[in-house]
Amino acid sequence: MADFLEKLKSWRLPWREIATSGTTSELPELEEHLPDHQIDQVHEQMMACLQSKGGEVSARQRAAALGEGYLGLNEEGRKRFLKILADDFGTDRDVVAQSIYNFQSAEDEDAKCSYEIELRRNLEPARMTLLRQFNALPQGVKFLVDLRAELMAMAREDASLKVVERDLKDILISWFDVGFLELRRITWDSPASVLEKIIEYEAVHSIQSWSDLKNRLARDRRLFAFFHPRMPDEPLIFVEVALVNGMADNVQALLDEDAPLLDPHDADTAIFYSISNAQAGLAGISFGNFLIKKVVGNLSQDLPNLKTFATLSPVPGFRKWLDKVLAEGDSSLLQNQEREALKAASGQKGAKGGLKHLLEQPDWHEEEAAHDALKSPLMRLAARYLTEAKRKGTRPLDPVAHFHLSNGARMERLNWLGDVSEKGMKQAGGLMINYLYKLKDIEKNHEAYSAVGKIITSSQIKTLKKG
Amino acid sequence: MADFLEKLKSWRLPWREIATSGTTSELPELEEHLPDHQIDQVHEQMMACLQSKGGEVSARQRAAALGEGYLGLNEEGRKRFLKILADDFGTDRDVVAQSIYNFQSAEDEDAKCSYEIELRRNLEPARMTLLRQFNALPQGVKFLVDLRAELMAMAREDASLKVVERDLKDILISWFDVGFLELRRITWDSPASVLEKIIEYEAVHSIQSWSDLKNRLARDRRLFAFFHPRMPDEPLIFVEVALVNGMADNVQALLDEDAPLLDPHDADTAIFYSISNAQAGLAGISFGNFLIKKVVGNLSQDLPNLKTFATLSPVPGFRKWLDKVLAEGDSSLLQNQEREALKAASGQKGAKGGLKHLLEQPDWHEEEAAHDALKSPLMRLAARYLTEAKRKGTRPLDPVAHFHLSNGARMERLNWLGDVSEKGMKQAGGLMINYLYKLKDIEKNHEAYSAVGKIITSSQIKTLKKG
Amino acid sequence: MADFLEKLKSWRLPWREIATSGTTSELPELEEHLPDHQIDQVHEQMMACLQSKGGEVSARQRAAALGEGYLGLNEEGRKRFLKILADDFGTDRDVVAQSIYNFQSAEDEDAKCSYEIELRRNLEPARMTLLRQFNALPQGVKFLVDLRAELMAMAREDASLKVVERDLKDILISWFDVGFLELRRITWDSPASVLEKIIEYEAVHSIQSWSDLKNRLARDRRLFAFFHPRMPDEPLIFVEVALVNGMADNVQALLDEDAPLLDPHDADTAIFYSISNAQAGLAGISFGNFLIKKVVGNLSQDLPNLKTFATLSPVPGFRKWLDKVLAEGDSSLLQNQEREALKAASGQKGAKGGLKHLLEQPDWHEEEAAHDALKSPLMRLAARYLTEAKRKGTRPLDPVAHFHLSNGARMERLNWLGDVSEKGMKQAGGLMINYLYKLKDIEKNHEAYSAVGKIITSSQIKTLKKG
Amino acid sequence: MADFLEKLKSWRLPWREIATSGTTSELPELEEHLPDHQIDQVHEQMMACLQSKGGEVSARQRAAALGEGYLGLNEEGRKRFLKILADDFGTDRDVVAQSIYNFQSAEDEDAKCSYEIELRRNLEPARMTLLRQFNALPQGVKFLVDLRAELMAMAREDASLKVVERDLKDILISWFDVGFLELRRITWDSPASVLEKIIEYEAVHSIQSWSDLKNRLARDRRLFAFFHPRMPDEPLIFVEVALVNGMADNVQALLDEDAPLLDPHDADTAIFYSISNAQAGLAGISFGNFLIKKVVGNLSQDLPNLKTFATLSPVPGFRKWLDKVLAEGDSSLLQNQEREALKAASGQKGAKGGLKHLLEQPDWHEEEAAHDALKSPLMRLAARYLTEAKRKGTRPLDPVAHFHLSNGARMERLNWLGDVSEKGMKQAGGLMINYLYKLKDIEKNHEAYSAVGKIITSSQIKTLKKG
Repeated sequence: MADFLEKLKSWRLPWREIATSGTTSELPELEEHLPDHQIDQVHEQMMACLQSKGGEVSARQRAAALGEGYLGLNEEGRKRFLKILADDFGTDRDVVAQSIYNFQSAEDEDAKCSYEIELRRNLEPARMTLLRQFNALPQGVKFLVDLRAELMAMAREDASLKVVERDLKDILISWFDVGFLELRRITWDSPASVLEKIIEYEAVHSIQSWSDLKNRLARDRRLFAFFHPRMPDEPLIFVEVALVNGMADNVQALLDEDAPLLDPHDADTAIFYSISNAQAGLAGISFGNFLIKKVVGNLSQDLPNLKTFATLSPVPGFRKWLDKVLAEGDSSLLQNQEREALKAASGQKGAKGGLKHLLEQPDWHEEEAAHDALKSPLMRLAARYLTEAKRKGTRPLDPVAHFHLSNGARMERLNWLGDVSEKGMKQAGGLMINYLYKLKDIEKNHEAYSAVGKIITSSQIKTLKKG
Repeated sequence: MADFLEKLKSWRLPWREIATSGTTSELPELEEHLPDHQIDQVHEQMMACLQSKGGEVSARQRAAALGEGYLGLNEEGRKRFLKILADDFGTDRDVVAQSIYNFQSAEDEDAKCSYEIELRRNLEPARMTLLRQFNALPQGVKFLVDLRAELMAMAREDASLKVVERDLKDILISWFDVGFLELRRITWDSPASVLEKIIEYEAVHSIQSWSDLKNRLARDRRLFAFFHPRMPDEPLIFVEVALVNGMADNVQALLDEDAPLLDPHDADTAIFYSISNAQAGLAGISFGNFLIKKVVGNLSQDLPNLKTFATLSPVPGFRKWLDKVLAEGDSSLLQNQEREALKAASGQKGAKGGLKHLLEQPDWHEEEAAHDALKSPLMRLAARYLTEAKRKGTRPLDPVAHFHLSNGARMERLNWLGDVSEKGMKQAGGLMINYLYKLKDIEKNHEAYSAVGKIITSSQIKTLKKG
Repeated sequence: MADFLEKLKSWRLPWREIATSGTTSELPELEEHLPDHQIDQVHEQMMACLQSKGGEVSARQRAAALGEGYLGLNEEGRKRFLKILADDFGTDRDVVAQSIYNFQSAEDEDAKCSYEIELRRNLEPARMTLLRQFNALPQGVKFLVDLRAELMAMAREDASLKVVERDLKDILISWFDVGFLELRRITWDSPASVLEKIIEYEAVHSIQSWSDLKNRLARDRRLFAFFHPRMPDEPLIFVEVALVNGMADNVQALLDEDAPLLDPHDADTAIFYSISNAQAGLAGISFGNFLIKKVVGNLSQDLPNLKTFATLSPVPGFRKWLDKVLAEGDSSLLQNQEREALKAASGQKGAKGGLKHLLEQPDWHEEEAAHDALKSPLMRLAARYLTEAKRKGTRPLDPVAHFHLSNGARMERLNWLGDVSEKGMKQAGGLMINYLYKLKDIEKNHEAYSAVGKIITSSQIKTLKKG
Repeated sequence: MADFLEKLKSWRLPWREIATSGTTSELPELEEHLPDHQIDQVHEQMMACLQSKGGEVSARQRAAALGEGYLGLNEEGRKRFLKILADDFGTDRDVVAQSIYNFQSAEDEDAKCSYEIELRRNLEPARMTLLRQFNALPQGVKFLVDLRAELMAMAREDASLKVVERDLKDILISWFDVGFLELRRITWDSPASVLEKIIEYEAVHSIQSWSDLKNRLARDRRLFAFFHPRMPDEPLIFVEVALVNGMADNVQALLDEDAPLLDPHDADTAIFYSISNAQAGLAGISFGNFLIKKVVGNLSQDLPNLKTFATLSPVPGFRKWLDKVLAEGDSSLLQNQEREALKAASGQKGAKGGLKHLLEQPDWHEEEAAHDALKSPLMRLAARYLTEAKRKGTRPLDPVAHFHLSNGARMERLNWLGDVSEKGMKQAGGLMINYLYKLKDIEKNHEAYSAVGKIITSSQIKTLKKG
């Protein structure tokens, strides 16, 4: 946000030039903590915006000045600022009450419909108008997206700010309708300022350097992002794709900068190996499914040689779940011969202890005995975790699984030692999974999953689960 | 719309490629009149969209198919289609009733706020979701803008469609937030496809030919338009500006293709001589004031030599009002010596008859006697019309006057024989007026006008009015 | 050129800002006729450019000032200006003589090579340096292209200017290397300023109006042009293509604005119906063959459904040739039954007289008898004209035929009443011809044609010729 | 070049699609060393290109194939390839002899002029045509620029290749006319692929990392480069500018990533602190003076607050010269008190030894005694080096001095410890110099320098020199 502020300062407000008149009661520079005596002033400015004093153009200009003032505040000051919005700029309850009465007592359907719309409009609090006016800031949309990110954090401590956050979310839902987004391919010819953000926002397999990034943009790689027309330099969400032969099973191999390049026209498979949301302020406004399907459509058209579309995904909650069930002492977790092997490999008495002990050894995957003893139980238990562990009784505990299943993918293949990075070992004992997007089954899969929670799995997963 | 349909057909639906699965119950080609047996089918498809059957992506795809189906219908079919939206896809009244109950009986403010938001959301009818999904059509935003234009026309005959129109308007208000619009200068280097639309949409002084247009884009002319990022080829509103010396008083002189060019760096005045709304479907969503002020800001920066910003505007309702007051027989309308002159010039007995008679002569402005007899009374009465004739008691009857006054302009100068085109003579007896945008007074003027209806006028107008 | 001058004036010279120093002996405004006393001044400025007085940057700046001065001269003044270049800025004959001596008396091959290059460089006259410096003008390349057009015209009257024209041609040949040109598709979305030039430059079937042009840019039409990177708004040469089914035989049908559109993906044939050179100053620097073949490559890739690439071309010299051979009285021109038919249809005694007489009737093609009598002899004689009439003994008299044959096309089909416009009737009795570009035969055809002048023809042409 | 080859392979040759005919005698893949039996084949292909066998389009296509073949060769193979061009594709000496005869024996001036042009054309060797045809390669211009770089290296060992290099240079001189170049500002929003090249090509103060680069593109920095329209991703030459207050005297301070940013509108001075040629193959074709002056013009217009334009430049040859004159034992080099100080600081007996000894101490600039003893003699001797040390008797030995002086700059200020990097200490004992570009004196300075070698210096330099 500091950077953003910096940037903002270097631009000219488009409305500024017009405001040569001395009549606009310009906001004097706000103090960082927004002391009490300035609160009234801010309140008054907000009222002036809402009453469109001096006309709508001036109102927008005032709102922009307010927004700039906000950016100059520290955390305490910002909370006080937002509290004004929360407390003083809600709906007019008397008006709402009257509207409800009108609606309820309307005599014919036509009148009822009219009063219904009136009620809906009256239920829109004044602060929504004000928030929309902040759009007049340069990069106003980005300002509001970042504001929501701040609001979500603050509302965790002060629930009274929650209403502002929800109102802002409703505005953003409308503005970020997926129909407005444009899909752009990011390449090594893209602006460095955009690539820098890709490096910053990548959340799955972090990008180590510019040369790591360049490798992810090589001839046999693709990176696609959604952008909003009014945030042209800010990716909203992006997906990284590797064009390969056969379904990739190891992410280190995919990211190896020394691996030879493949001619994309010779690839038969597109592997989606990373999907990252880039804007905290758009949490809960989902584009991931659209992104994947647009990219599938796009790639299919450009490279008809691609026959398989699948992910190489992490299993982020597996180890945590495993620790929990191990602690609960479920005796059915391990099979006899596995117990023996684990004991032998770990030198520990209890098999579960052995399992846990082995997993805690750094680099166990490089030791043959540990590796051999762990493979069978981990693979089986991961299959069980993915298909049986649920949250609130219905949806899979694993968030990545839920995302792809609800998009209509099927669980295709668990990969032993698919990610041996520190993070991969810690989250999932090195396991990765492929979700398969089979075009002709996507809708059917989605329906089965969303209607009755049915998880479509391949025979590998089924077999693993049985043990 | 026919053209648009044509265009639409030549594009590929972006979601189509994905829908290779046979499971989507594709809409068979609709018959033009949308017979009864197809209504159920359309209804069912709409339901499928709302339930996101097969996932959100499929829902959008279905909505796009529905939209395409709509475009194939004739007027009767379209009405039947929209009637489904009006009748069957409103709010759920039981849910709304429950929400109202929850809201009213909430015990603390936090709960009240939450129920309030819930109620607002429940008051959003299902059809709004569906309408937003039409955005998945190629040029989906243009589709919805044109749909609203159709709805406005149809609702005049069938009021039950009004609700759909109002819901759609609420969507468009949010999407067409002025912060999303971009100001573009249109030049002779702009795409012919855009220029063609300027020719089509110009509503004040119609463009006669491509060479007329080229002249309006010459070195000493400017044309600016607002565009929406998802309707990049469709101007929303545009303004034509002439860079001149002194405040222009005659539009035929401005539009003369043979007039010599002025170096824009030598001009001292920018004359806004035409403002046209281009999208019937955005009626009631106003950008005109923003456009004028952005253009003023833009020109000020580029050409610091410009000192005066003013319009050369029509007085569209003058003759109509004049005919009415003449018919009402108000004896104070004319002064004695005017009566004499009118009688003499017209050869008619009654002065009013003479006035009317003279005005009905074609080309009276080219006859000295008529011209001389008419000038004084017409100028005075026009000043009276502009400042005193009101609609609903408060705002000026003249819509152009209201527009500029509410933007903070002042009435500057009435121009005798400012527009001698057939239209200009018929609407306003050839009179035109300059509204002056004085930057430092805009806010003050706006406040005075919007608060108490005060019309700021120059001394010329004041003197004329007195007679 | 007047327009161009106008344009030029509205721009700022990029070098101007730098020249704040008073030391540059600025050229005072030249008088239109460039009187004697100014000639010395111009000469001196030219010398200053060549000596790079004040540095190379200043030299370019001076050259630009000279170029601007030139644009202000009238025809007489321009001739005097160019005469200075012709007379005073050639090679240095003494230096050349010495160079020749060095070259001839060089003792070893290495020295010979060095002297050879030295000689080549010394043979480059001073004026070439000066001409290249004019490139510093805004639109300097266009300036030089237009200058060559002027020089060609002037050199027809004053041969001493020929050397300047040839030197300039050598510069342009190097700068307009085909590798620098870019192929652009022109559409209805192209800038009006470019489309305006298409209308102006079209040389085969003139464009009647903007709506005629729009029709030539419709969905089933293509227009491609070559551009130079430093003349981005000026097409160099362009070709118009119709996407149709079957080989088109009538140009009026092709240009009919009311004809239904074809989906380009359903077309099997691309018809090149017009190729126009746009820059007189590039005469003798040929891009036509590159244009056709790039467009063929481009279309093949985009629309694999296209199977046939052919032209629909005029036969510009046919009537002129026919008049000549008729006048020469060759008795073998007509067959007996043709004679009878012509006599009958024309009411003239002599058959040849009849032929000529009929052809001179306006609208003979709409009269059955004339039409029937003329078809057989005209078709046969046209086939003879195209294949047998030669210029300088070898290449076909018909320039269009020569162009396409040397590109490797074959004569495919003569079309009766293919162009019934006034021009078409006058030039070729309404006949048109298709040249076929069969990819696999292009090289072979070219070789046969360029090596031994062999004209490849279809069986239709062969049969027609035999009669 | 390896990268370039890689890139090339991933593209399609534009002419390829056309060449579906089997008749083109396609070049089979060349072996790396180009063995004898393939030399004939290559020779034959070259002949086919020149004879335009199959037409000009085919000839270009063939040349492109040859170029691709060349790229596949190793160093030995390439030499053999170029040797063919050198030996077999020169001028036709008989034709040249005849042309000379015609020219010499021409009877009138007109004929002489014609024969002169004919002779010039005949002196253009066949290989120039062939080299130009390589332009048909994708990135053909870059291919030729790189080819010249290779040729220059090879010609150092094999002088017979020199002719090819000189012919190629003549082509490039024509194609890289400064009027064709476009000045582009490089920012952090430029493509990463271009920025990567800036990092690679920077030759004065090497760029350490992407964050170093980002700092050089910050708000108070500028980077401008010249580009050729057919090498749009390849900077030809670029200059880095710092916007500062006062004339900068230390490059480490300029490049400090932690230094605070200045608002460019507050700067009074533009410091050109690095100019790098980026294309070895364009050696001897100079754009530096144009670049500096265009950038000065550009900055003056954008930021009228800039009053001073100067460089902060290295003194690359100072230490080398100093070592030489020290070795020569010139006793006038040092003054008495300097001798004492040097002896004291170095602990060496001879002062010169002391000077040399101290300079060889790593980090002497951080030791007070050494620093103090060295400052006075080094500054004086540097002033002497810059103004008196000459190459070939006339132009300054220091190449950077020569460059800026010939552009019209003056020597403004020597800066003690201006560059304490390893390179700066080694080349120039840490000294840097400002050259001042005073707009109104540039031409005058240039003339004085280029006519009589006069070096314009400030009083600081004069005073230093005197000691």
